[in-house]
Amino acid sequence: MSPRVLYFEDYPPGAVFTGGAYPVTEAEILEFARRWDPQGMHIDPAFASRGPFAGLIASGWHTGAMMMRMLTEVFVPPANLASPGLDELRWLLPVRPGDVLSLRITVTDARRSRSKPDQGIVKSLVEVLNQKGEAVMNLNPVSLMRCQPVAVSLGTTMLAITRRN
Amino acid sequence: MSPRVLYFEDYPPGAVFTGGAYPVTEAEILEFARRWDPQGMHIDPAFASRGPFAGLIASGWHTGAMMMRMLTEVFVPPANLASPGLDELRWLLPVRPGDVLSLRITVTDARRSRSKPDQGIVKSLVEVLNQKGEAVMNLNPVSLMRCQPVAVSLGTTMLAITRRN
Repeated sequence: MSPRVLYFEDYPPGAVFTGGAYPVTEAEILEFARRWDPQGMHIDPAFASRGPFAGLIASGWHTGAMMMRMLTEVFVPPANLASPGLDELRWLLPVRPGDVLSLRITVTDARRSRSKPDQGIVKSLVEVLNQKGEAVMNLNPVSLMRCQPVAVSLGTTMLAITRRN
Repeated sequence: MSPRVLYFEDYPPGAVFTGGAYPVTEAEILEFARRWDPQGMHIDPAFASRGPFAGLIASGWHTGAMMMRMLTEVFVPPANLASPGLDELRWLLPVRPGDVLSLRITVTDARRSRSKPDQGIVKSLVEVLNQKGEAVMNLNPVSLMRCQPVAVSLGTTMLAITRRN
């Protein structure tokens, strides 16, 4: 797992972060989908076994939730301010009970905000992989992150200058 | 609420579907985010009150889950086969406790699959609205739907021809 990083400056283009090992269970697939995505392929094993995926598969929004959980552990820093959105989310392969998911995140763009110089915009490619190393979901999120406080970039012996909104 | 529709043929370009009335609660924002997106702005009301949104806001993946739940009620038919993905998801405004969310869905493209003539591909713009009619989230999902069985399109007096995978 990559070391914990904290500010916009820690996400240069080309940086790669990996981590996570999320076990997918039938019980959680059913629980998530009954509440949020009650379609037969996600909540009814018998129906799903006759369908195009020949078995129960996780809701794509469940895969997104598992991804977000891992993202908070290996990528998203406390300096994360918000996400305006994401582009080109693709559900590439079914996610099934017994799979173990992990993440590979590549920073694709990073630039300081012009209007708010204490903030930066980070774009990345997030790949959700299964235990075979196959990508089951890809997406390109945008993150708005706080820049390193001036005191930190000048050295830890200085008094911290905290920036407030 | 629009009448329930069942097959690819019921989603011509330009068709608009509306519905849903999902009450957003602080308890559910906290519950969802503690499990799937444990960032301070979603799980810590005191921290969130000092942040850029001046209060607790729902995880964007929670808004997506609420959207998916409503989508299964007003748009996604039993003939839905899968979704390859979505484009240009934007979180436009914060979703807060007390908001009531609803959906407006506009079919933007619909074409029959060339390789699988019993299937069609539907593209849509999904707008998640709050109680003021403001869009809090937009996205452009792609849905793969089963076409109307031949017997149905010829009339209900014929024997049903079921198509199996």
